[in-house]
Order: sequence, then structure tokens, then C-alpha cells
Amino acid sequence: MASLKARLEHSITPIALRSYLAEFISTFLFVFAAVGANMSTRKMTLNAESNSSSLVAIAIANAFALSVVVYIAANISGGHVNPAVTFGMAIGGHITIPMTIFYWIAQIFGSVMACLLLKTTIVGQHIPVHTIQGEMTGFGASILEGVMTFALVYTVYASADPRNGPTGAIGPLAIGLIAGANVLASGPFTGGSMNPACSFGAALIGGSFKNQAVYWVGPLIGAGIAGILYENVVFPAQVPDSSDGHFNGVRV
Amino acid sequence: MASLKARLEHSITPIALRSYLAEFISTFLFVFAAVGANMSTRKMTLNAESNSSSLVAIAIANAFALSVVVYIAANISGGHVNPAVTFGMAIGGHITIPMTIFYWIAQIFGSVMACLLLKTTIVGQHIPVHTIQGEMTGFGASILEGVMTFALVYTVYASADPRNGPTGAIGPLAIGLIAGANVLASGPFTGGSMNPACSFGAALIGGSFKNQAVYWVGPLIGAGIAGILYENVVFPAQVPDSSDGHFNGVRV
Amino acid sequence: MASLKARLEHSITPIALRSYLAEFISTFLFVFAAVGANMSTRKMTLNAESNSSSLVAIAIANAFALSVVVYIAANISGGHVNPAVTFGMAIGGHITIPMTIFYWIAQIFGSVMACLLLKTTIVGQHIPVHTIQGEMTGFGASILEGVMTFALVYTVYASADPRNGPTGAIGPLAIGLIAGANVLASGPFTGGSMNPACSFGAALIGGSFKNQAVYWVGPLIGAGIAGILYENVVFPAQVPDSSDGHFNGVRV
Amino acid sequence: MASLKARLEHSITPIALRSYLAEFISTFLFVFAAVGANMSTRKMTLNAESNSSSLVAIAIANAFALSVVVYIAANISGGHVNPAVTFGMAIGGHITIPMTIFYWIAQIFGSVMACLLLKTTIVGQHIPVHTIQGEMTGFGASILEGVMTFALVYTVYASADPRNGPTGAIGPLAIGLIAGANVLASGPFTGGSMNPACSFGAALIGGSFKNQAVYWVGPLIGAGIAGILYENVVFPAQVPDSSDGHFNGVRV
Repeated sequence: MASLKARLEHSITPIALRSYLAEFISTFLFVFAAVGANMSTRKMTLNAESNSSSLVAIAIANAFALSVVVYIAANISGGHVNPAVTFGMAIGGHITIPMTIFYWIAQIFGSVMACLLLKTTIVGQHIPVHTIQGEMTGFGASILEGVMTFALVYTVYASADPRNGPTGAIGPLAIGLIAGANVLASGPFTGGSMNPACSFGAALIGGSFKNQAVYWVGPLIGAGIAGILYENVVFPAQVPDSSDGHFNGVRV
Repeated sequence: MASLKARLEHSITPIALRSYLAEFISTFLFVFAAVGANMSTRKMTLNAESNSSSLVAIAIANAFALSVVVYIAANISGGHVNPAVTFGMAIGGHITIPMTIFYWIAQIFGSVMACLLLKTTIVGQHIPVHTIQGEMTGFGASILEGVMTFALVYTVYASADPRNGPTGAIGPLAIGLIAGANVLASGPFTGGSMNPACSFGAALIGGSFKNQAVYWVGPLIGAGIAGILYENVVFPAQVPDSSDGHFNGVRV
Repeated sequence: MASLKARLEHSITPIALRSYLAEFISTFLFVFAAVGANMSTRKMTLNAESNSSSLVAIAIANAFALSVVVYIAANISGGHVNPAVTFGMAIGGHITIPMTIFYWIAQIFGSVMACLLLKTTIVGQHIPVHTIQGEMTGFGASILEGVMTFALVYTVYASADPRNGPTGAIGPLAIGLIAGANVLASGPFTGGSMNPACSFGAALIGGSFKNQAVYWVGPLIGAGIAGILYENVVFPAQVPDSSDGHFNGVRV
Repeated sequence: MASLKARLEHSITPIALRSYLAEFISTFLFVFAAVGANMSTRKMTLNAESNSSSLVAIAIANAFALSVVVYIAANISGGHVNPAVTFGMAIGGHITIPMTIFYWIAQIFGSVMACLLLKTTIVGQHIPVHTIQGEMTGFGASILEGVMTFALVYTVYASADPRNGPTGAIGPLAIGLIAGANVLASGPFTGGSMNPACSFGAALIGGSFKNQAVYWVGPLIGAGIAGILYENVVFPAQVPDSSDGHFNGVRV
């Protein structure tokens, strides 16, 4: 077992620093497109929330942008772009706890900067904040966001599986498409976030932390369950019950 | 020929049980997105059925979600996510009859649970049920659903063909895209189901089994024809007319 | 040089007959989705021609369906699904003239049968026929359709190029996407056909051959130019100026 | 170091001339689809700028068309289709300065010809010109266009990276999808150009050069930053700090 000092030193190598930069860039570009598309539809339609084509626009922006930002960061940082995904990967032992914290900081900072850029360049438009609608309780919204984040993180696990064969090529696309489908399923109910960094950045710059807990509790629980289920039950590696401790806890 | 007991034992190995779990998870996530998107558009537009952008939203949710749930289950269970696909695979001899039954149970259970989750978390919204519209007779609707399921199962066969070469990488995507295209073609006429599990789950939780037969008879017949045609006529394996009986019946 | 008799015999081998069947199935399924989506939007909106979301629905149906039907026929017949594509391939010497004729018959028959199925199952709806709008002359419409078919056939050539490397995997997708983009560009002006078989089937069952010539002349000329340009100028094979006659004319 | 004469001779070899032709064809086809889709939605809806489904139509046309035209030119010219991308590649030392100039000429000529074709065949419709809206200052619009072009060029670099492994197959798709996502994010604010050639062609044929500088300054700066950042900081090649000068300036 590595000492805390060794683990921290492992987190600030040039390769690690590049990973944080890649997460910052990808999260910045994702939030720019996702929140920007929301602002576009609000400018175009007075009552964008009651309009199916606004929902389509936002969902496609999420799907396309997430596919690409995962793609461009995949070789460097793994392309998480989402604190819930990083948490799900930590649960599965694929990233150390110190690195998880630096990933979160990079992701949240990228999201805040993207929202700040949109607010300062687009004059007279509010930054839209994720909130839950009248049909939903906070508990129900957390469950919906949790189920959707489960789908996302489960797909991340499946995409990274070396046993994929040729279909591994479309992994980043699959990650974006499941996000897009779930925005269509949940947009008018919870906003379809699945990404605590995106919700936090919009809340900070938009100035409202109402319901913010929903966008952290649900996604983190869903992500953790996905990591545990995929690695241990659905598709365990060849010797899942070996005694080398690989699956017995977070690898640090 | 294996005895019935041996065949049943083959159906409850750890690998088989993981397949059923993978089918449950994938069908759950698919029905969640497909039915959820339908509910989203109904909330957004009073008269969603007379609105092209609602149709686009539902079709894209079907296409994106089906692509992904096939992708994440492909290496484990084959990624059927649909009793008609499993039936078409059984007709082609790619899955035994006992396993077919367990697949069906997992798929239907996944669909019912997804509809139940949507009903309990989204207060005051009905679960939308597939029904046929005024332009259609039950016979005509069965034919439409049958043709579309033929397209789907034929695509599943083509995707799984080892003779594909590099384009095999986009197989799961092709399966989702043909479903999306056919939802656009049939949405306002039959609902564009192609999936008896999805129709059954929505009917059970939504409380109406009107026209339910349409969504079983058409798809199962279409799926069976696709399996027979692809394996025996359009693109038979190297020695299709050999006398080893491989294509003479369901392999059990 | 083979005699006419030998060439005809080459056109009725079991492999050739399977190609015709594959072209029939793929064209049938494509026209079903493309024309069906058009009928869906007409049912949903009284004035579908003045509605951007109807255009999106039709374009996506074209893109998704064409990608998939090319994919499922690619290993068997090459996945033309379009008389203009077959013509462009004949110009480049990739298919003999007798086989070209059988391909055309299979494609047109598939299109007519798909329109007939839609007409008989969906009661009280007309089959929509491609026509040119007030902004267009017949000459201008032929040029637009020709340019778009050029783009389609050029993409078919690029997709089939063995020098593609790994991106060859998304070839069928590229073919569908360029068709979808061009439907968006031309829908309210020429209908965005690019496929004489589709236009002919709709005209025959819909009962109007007005402007039909536009949908044959433009696409065939565009397809021919694409074949000549790709093979001889833009990206010729390693020894394009060799004297073996491979590129000197149609290979028969 | 090659002399100026040698560099110019290198720019007019048959292979180089084919690259310029490929850039001309791809830019022509891209601008045809992107500007054509804009004209389609303007014909369909009187107030297309206040309509989310028009935005979706234009964004999808951009995404699909750009993916395909990059795909069909990738093996010949690298598939830039955009002066800003070529500039970003020159900054990274992947193309010489004389070739950069010829690429620009081919791209701008292709864009102008596509707009001219649309204007002459579609009677009574204006060519839509990129302009900035009331919410934006020229400075803010330049920043938005710069950030989006940064995303585009960064994706081009990532797509061309030989360290990609199997996901390299979807590179051209990723380039199109990020453009589509950013059109959704910025359409009603800056028009979402990211492509000086497209903006210039539309301005020349549409007859208005208002705000034209925005569509050159922002994209070129964003592209340059992307090239420098990707090559030197985020994902440098194995020996980034070697003294062979490979990254010390533009390779000519």
C-alpha cells in the first residue's frame, strides 16, 4: 500500500496534470454547448419549456457535445467530464481518491468558467438553472436523475471494456447518445442533468441553488451502483473472486 | 441431442444468469427512455399527437437509447432487449427454447419496472399506451408493425454477421437507427412499437390492453420471417445446403 | 472480353440473384421509412410543408433508414438501394450492364411495393409524390437534384475505397448522413429525392408523374460525374494511367 | 530548410493539386447543405429565427454534412473544409504556408460557387448572411466564434492523432457533431459559423459584409490556440521537449 505522500505525488506528475487540463477543457466545452443550447431555445421561443422542438434542440446538443468531449479526452484523462462518472470509476477502483478530487475540481472549474463566458458574452440572457417541476418531489427527482446517471456510468464502463472487440470504436458516441435520450425522457421534469458539475456551474453563475442537492445525491448514488454492478455482477473480469484484492475496494 | 434436464441446467449457469440480468437492465433503460420521452412531449404540448416535433423527440429517444442498450449488453446477452428479436434468434437457431423463455421474462419484467418507476416518480402523468389510430385496421396495423420488426431483426442478423469486416463496429448503432426511422414512419398510425415487451409494460401499468394483440402478432411474425430469410436465402453461411442439419430447425 | 451470353449467365448465378433480393429488401425498407415519415408528418400537421419540424422528421428518417439499409446489404449487393448509385458504379466499371439492369428492376420493384403497402394499410392517406415548388424551374430542380446525387455517389465511392483505413467502419453511416443533410437543404424546393426509384414508386402509386423527368435526369447525370471524377481525378488508384484498360471504360 | 522555389514546387505536384480539388469539392458540398438548410427553414417559416425547429434543422444539416465532407476528403487533403482548420494545422506545423494559401483559395472558391448555385437555382430567395444579434457585441461574438472554433480544431487534432486506437474510426463523425452542437448553442446569437469560408461566400453572394471581421478574427485565433495547446501541452508526442525543433515553429 502506498503512503499518502506517495499517492499525492502520483497526483501531480506531468501526466496527471495533463489529465486535469483535459477534463477542464472537455467539461468547459460540454457545458458551453449544453447550457448555450438551452439559452438559444429560450431566446427563440417565449415559452421554450412548453415546446417539444426546444427539448429536441437541447437533447441533441447534449448528445453531440458529450460524445465529442469524451472522444477528445479519452486517451488523456479517460474522458469523464462529470463528477458522477469519476465517482463511479473510483468506486470500481479505476482512479485513486486524490486524483478523484483533482478531477472534480477541474470539472467544476470548467463548468463555472463556461457559464461565466456565456453570461458575459450574451448580454441580457439569464443562465438557465436545473430545477424540478411541479410533477416531481425532490425524492422522485433524485431517483430519476439517479437512474439516468446509472445508465450513463454503466455505458462508460461498457465502453471502456477491453472485451468489446470492434464495437469499442463507437464507445464515446454511445456515452453521448444515452445522455441525449435521457434528456428527452426527463427534460420537462428534472431538466435531465446527470452531471453535478454542470448543475453546480449553472447554479453558481445563475444565482440559485434551489434543488441543488437533487443533482448531487441522485447522480452519485446511481453512479456508484453502476460501478459496483458492472464490475462485480454483470460482466466481471476473468477471475473476479481472486484473492489479490483488486475488486475488494477502491484502488489507491 | 441434449435431454430436457441438460438444457434446463444450461439455462441457469452463472453466464446464463448474467445474460438475463443484462437483458433486464437494458430493457429497463430502453423503456425508461422511450416511454419517458413520450411523457415529456405530452407534458410540453397539449396536443402532442398532432405535432411533428413531438414525433422527432420520441423517435430520437428510441434510436439513441436502443443503440446504447444494445451496445452495453452485446457482449453479455447479445443485446436483444426485445422478445421479438429473441424469437427471431430462436427461429435461426441461435438461442435455445428454455433460454428464450428466460430472456422474455427478463425483458418483460424490465419493461414493467421501468413503467412503474415513471408512474410513481412523475406525479399526475399517465403512462402512454400503444394504440392504433383511426386510419388503421387491426390487420393493417399488425402488418405495419410486422414489416418494421422484420427490418429490425434483419438488421440484428446483419450486425451479428462475422463476415461484416470493419463496419461491424457500427452494428449496435444501425439497430437503433432503423428503429428510430420506423418510429418516424409509423408514430401517428400504430405508435411504432416493434417491441412486445415495451407495449406490454406500458399496457399493464397504463391500464389498457386494447389492441395489445397487434403488438405481439405482427412483430413475432415479422421477426420469424427475418430470421428465416437472412439465414437461408439472402446471406447463408458458406455451406448452407450441407446435410448436417444446422439450418433445419431450432437448435436446442 | 466476355460474350453477351456469358455476361447474362454471370447475371443469374445464385450470388447474383441474392444481390437482387438484397437490393429489393433494402430499397423496400428505405422507401417504407422515407415515404412513411412524410405521411406521418402530413397526418400530424395540416400544413406540413410550412413546418420546419416536419422537414427535420423526414430528413432524419431518410438519414437513419438509408444508413441502415446500405449497411445490411453492403456485403451482399454493395448496398446501392438507388438506380443512380448503380449507374454511377457502372460508369466506374464496378458492375456490368446486365447486372445494372437487374439491380434497377429490383430497386424499382421494391419501391413500388413499399408504396403499395403504405397505401393499402394506411387508409385515407395519399402517397406523397416528389414535385418541384414555385421557386424552382425544371432545369434548376434538375441541377439541385444532380448536385445532391453527386454528393451521395461520391460518398459511396469514398466509403468503398479500400484505402480508407479504420474510418471505413462508418461508411454506411456517411452515406445516410449526406442524404439527410441534403433533404434539409432541398426539401421545400425539390423534395430532396436523389433516388429515381423512390420518386418513381411514389409517382406510380400516388398517381402523378408530373416533374418525374427531373428526378431521373438530374440524379443520373450527377451520379455519372461523381463516378468519373472520383475514379480518375480526385483519388485514382495507384496506377491510374496503366494501359490495362481498367479505367478506360465500363467493365463488362 | 527548403528554398522558396522548392516549397512552391512542392505545392503544385499532382498530389497537391488533387488535395485542392478535394477541398474545393468538400467545401462546396458542405456550404451547399448548410446554407441550403438555412434557406429551407426560411421558406417554411416566416419567422424562422424565432423557431427552435429551424435551429434544429440547420444544426443537423451542419453536423451531418460536415461529418461526411470531412470523411470523403480525409485520405486526400486531410479534410479541413475550413480556412480556420487549415490555419490551426499550419500553426501545428502539419501543412506548409504555400499549401495553406492554396487550401484557402480552394475553400473560399468552393463556398462562393455553392452560394452562387443556390442563388441561381432557387428563384426569389436571398442567400442568408451570418450576422450578430442584439444581445451580442462584436467583441463578444468574436469570443463565442473563437471558443467554438477552438472546439472544432481541437477535435480535428484529436481525430488525427495516431494514438487513438479503434475510436479513430469515428473521427470525421466527431468533427461534424461538435459543429452541430455549437450551432445549437450559438445559432440565434452569432449564427454559429466557425468557418470563415462559409461566412465569406454567403456575404459575397448575399451582398452584405456587415460583421464579416467577426467570422475571421474569432475563428482564426481560436484555431491557433487549439493547435498550440493540443500539440504542446495537452497531449504532446513522445519527446515533446526534444531539441530537434519540431514544435518550435511552423514547418515549411
